[in-house]
Amino acid sequence: LPSGLVLASDSRSNAGIDQIQAVRKLEVLAEPGRRLIAIQSAGNLATTQSVISNLKQALGRGVLGEDLYGANTMFEAAQIVGDMLRRITDRDAHYVQPYGDVSASFLVSGQIVGEAPRLFEVYQAGNFVEASQRSAFLQIGETKYGKPILDRALNPDNSLDEAAKLALLSFDATIRSNLSVGLPIDMLRYETDSFSAVNLVTIPEHNAYWRELRRGYGEGLTALVAGLPAPPSAEALGAATGAKGGGA
Amino acid sequence: LPSGLVLASDSRSNAGIDQIQAVRKLEVLAEPGRRLIAIQSAGNLATTQSVISNLKQALGRGVLGEDLYGANTMFEAAQIVGDMLRRITDRDAHYVQPYGDVSASFLVSGQIVGEAPRLFEVYQAGNFVEASQRSAFLQIGETKYGKPILDRALNPDNSLDEAAKLALLSFDATIRSNLSVGLPIDMLRYETDSFSAVNLVTIPEHNAYWRELRRGYGEGLTALVAGLPAPPSAEALGAATGAKGGGA
Repeated sequence: LPSGLVLASDSRSNAGIDQIQAVRKLEVLAEPGRRLIAIQSAGNLATTQSVISNLKQALGRGVLGEDLYGANTMFEAAQIVGDMLRRITDRDAHYVQPYGDVSASFLVSGQIVGEAPRLFEVYQAGNFVEASQRSAFLQIGETKYGKPILDRALNPDNSLDEAAKLALLSFDATIRSNLSVGLPIDMLRYETDSFSAVNLVTIPEHNAYWRELRRGYGEGLTALVAGLPAPPSAEALGAATGAKGGGA
Repeated sequence: LPSGLVLASDSRSNAGIDQIQAVRKLEVLAEPGRRLIAIQSAGNLATTQSVISNLKQALGRGVLGEDLYGANTMFEAAQIVGDMLRRITDRDAHYVQPYGDVSASFLVSGQIVGEAPRLFEVYQAGNFVEASQRSAFLQIGETKYGKPILDRALNPDNSLDEAAKLALLSFDATIRSNLSVGLPIDMLRYETDSFSAVNLVTIPEHNAYWRELRRGYGEGLTALVAGLPAPPSAEALGAATGAKGGGA
């Protein structure tokens, strides 16, 4: 959004329904006042952790194409993450494939002095796409259940708080429908030109705000649907459109 | 629902994005006053049309295990559909596999005198499951985008009209997010013990009710989200939960 970025990641990692753990999938790397780079992960946990650990080790060492603090643009930052993903995949894929899927994907976002905030999705192949005014959000991982509310209600004019509510409701939709997603949710509301992660929050399970948000949305939705007009009868539709509405 | 069944099917059939056509995926077979059986299709169109045509040809011929008008229960009806699917798959799979996926699935629902209305999902393997009070809806085809609103708002106490609105909003969510689903929508509101398809309607593209439903829901949703409380700040969350909310 022109006002900034809203980033949200759940914490559920699973290798089958009986091996579930809570992990952090949102990493924030910041040089206060100069750059803030956030990396969100989905996919094979060994792969994503290896990519993140290697990128952190390279921070500030000045190696071209490896050091995120040396990136002059967020485009370069996305390229560095994609290249590291390719290196880890090249290293591990052959050994991991007999046991499962080695692939991973990332959202790389943030702001570097001299640019507006930017948001990229790094595919498992290491290439990447950028969000724009016309497609203002990107998702990785279990993306389908949470997409409709963003398609319907997210507007580039939204404030960060409005967009943050939609991000949480998008997660709630996925959590209700899919076991592989779960709280806590890490969420950063990054304000344009702040170069700061001061608004990074963790919403834990059994949180009062989360309960209130779900309750308010559920009740409001029921009332909203109740207030919409009922679908027309076969006669009304036939009269209005000339379409055949009769039974078999 | 205790009040009856709401069945909705879109009309989009596609074999790639440049081969799209409108087809009927909701068939209603009725013996007025005695039985109403609805069959909804998803998957390979040649397979589903072959299953439906064979079942229609067998109607009233009295062949055990083939004639849906000879089924004494909806369970038997689901079994007949599953067996026919197996027969068509056995016949075609070997020839079709080099070109694409032969598989198909069905929702088989309705009421036969002596039973309450029932709803089954017939898997591509020909086996099937039944909906219940605890899982009051079943979906086939492109199921993910349309699931959250049903998970959140469908209640077994809903009237048929309330459930019908939710079914249409569920389709709208999918239509917004996925090209493989499109109007017209065929929808039957079947009232328990009516044994009639009088409430079978077709909602065409550019229909005034459909436009009004989408507009009313979209505007209502935006207002609903705007009225929900904003997510707490890092300080507020830290104070409330003791969780670490600071930046990296």
